[in-house]
Amino acid sequence: MPETVREFDPLKEEIMDATYRALVTHGYGDLTVQSIADEFDKSKSLLYYHYEDKEDLLAEFLEYALQRFRRDVEIEVDEPEAQLHTLVDRLVPADLEEDSYQVQIALLELRSEAPHNERVREQYTRVDRSLQDVIVGILRRGIDEGVFVDVNPEAEAEILVSLLFGIRTRRLTTDEELSVADTRDALEMHLDRLKADGGN
Amino acid sequence: MPETVREFDPLKEEIMDATYRALVTHGYGDLTVQSIADEFDKSKSLLYYHYEDKEDLLAEFLEYALQRFRRDVEIEVDEPEAQLHTLVDRLVPADLEEDSYQVQIALLELRSEAPHNERVREQYTRVDRSLQDVIVGILRRGIDEGVFVDVNPEAEAEILVSLLFGIRTRRLTTDEELSVADTRDALEMHLDRLKADGGN
Repeated sequence: MPETVREFDPLKEEIMDATYRALVTHGYGDLTVQSIADEFDKSKSLLYYHYEDKEDLLAEFLEYALQRFRRDVEIEVDEPEAQLHTLVDRLVPADLEEDSYQVQIALLELRSEAPHNERVREQYTRVDRSLQDVIVGILRRGIDEGVFVDVNPEAEAEILVSLLFGIRTRRLTTDEELSVADTRDALEMHLDRLKADGGN
Repeated sequence: MPETVREFDPLKEEIMDATYRALVTHGYGDLTVQSIADEFDKSKSLLYYHYEDKEDLLAEFLEYALQRFRRDVEIEVDEPEAQLHTLVDRLVPADLEEDSYQVQIALLELRSEAPHNERVREQYTRVDRSLQDVIVGILRRGIDEGVFVDVNPEAEAEILVSLLFGIRTRRLTTDEELSVADTRDALEMHLDRLKADGGN
């Protein structure tokens, strides 16, 4: 399952870091290529040369975040059960630091553009599919190794993608935004059902 | 659990119907009190008298939709299992008609305002809590009556609220927006786990 470890182009990493910082500072609504350039130490023209508009940069940012996420979950962690927990912790961390919180809000705003914007819709379709693939891979291996019960991996993954996205979004859009302790307990309970030893 | 049947004020129903039609036509971004007034057959001044701005009208609209939803699920349907299915069908219908699709998009855009807008955040906190209460009530009764297995109603409800909201949103924001057949099958599988007869 794990592909070869991807090395990220250092220049691209710098551009993506600048995009991250610009999202923290400006959110999605006020983001411009200029605001990203302002966070970028190297030649600004380089950035303008590679990316036409902020949508271009955000498409790249999502893709980059997705690759890093897959590397962290699929390559850096080995056991299926630990992979599943790493995945959950990455998507719904117990504590959400201010910077991550701001970026999650910006990404939610980007996602809410999807119904009107085909390009954003395509990106999120790819993100969701990729996340689903990761989960299916983890579940299949866990079932083969006998650590998960014999569930339908595709259907369970479908449920988990929606569930994790739902929790992430509810955290940002309700007053309980910074306390997801109950939800994480409920999620634990949900994941325990998948485990061959019933979570014990 | 079910409260007394609420009768809705006919004038309010007309205003809410006008709000619905205006949301279908204009979406959230272009919605104004005027665009709602344009869909309203009675005196426009009446509408301006009662509602200060579109946020006022949308708060009322959400509350009204919630009350109707509770009436349809808790009062019009009797058995816990049927209540759960009605609830799922209302939130994630197999087929999404164009008008409902447009309104769901508008509500997603409203919800994505929540991180920046306390009033919207409070509304959605109330919506989520109310939905959670409905589900807890259904599960408790189903467990008492032996039709559901002995789960933790609060934790299951927490999972279901996030899951249903996640599915709704993914449907609107990915290319598979109009085909949720697989997701509904997966949801069926998830609900079957709650049933005392294993869904058979």
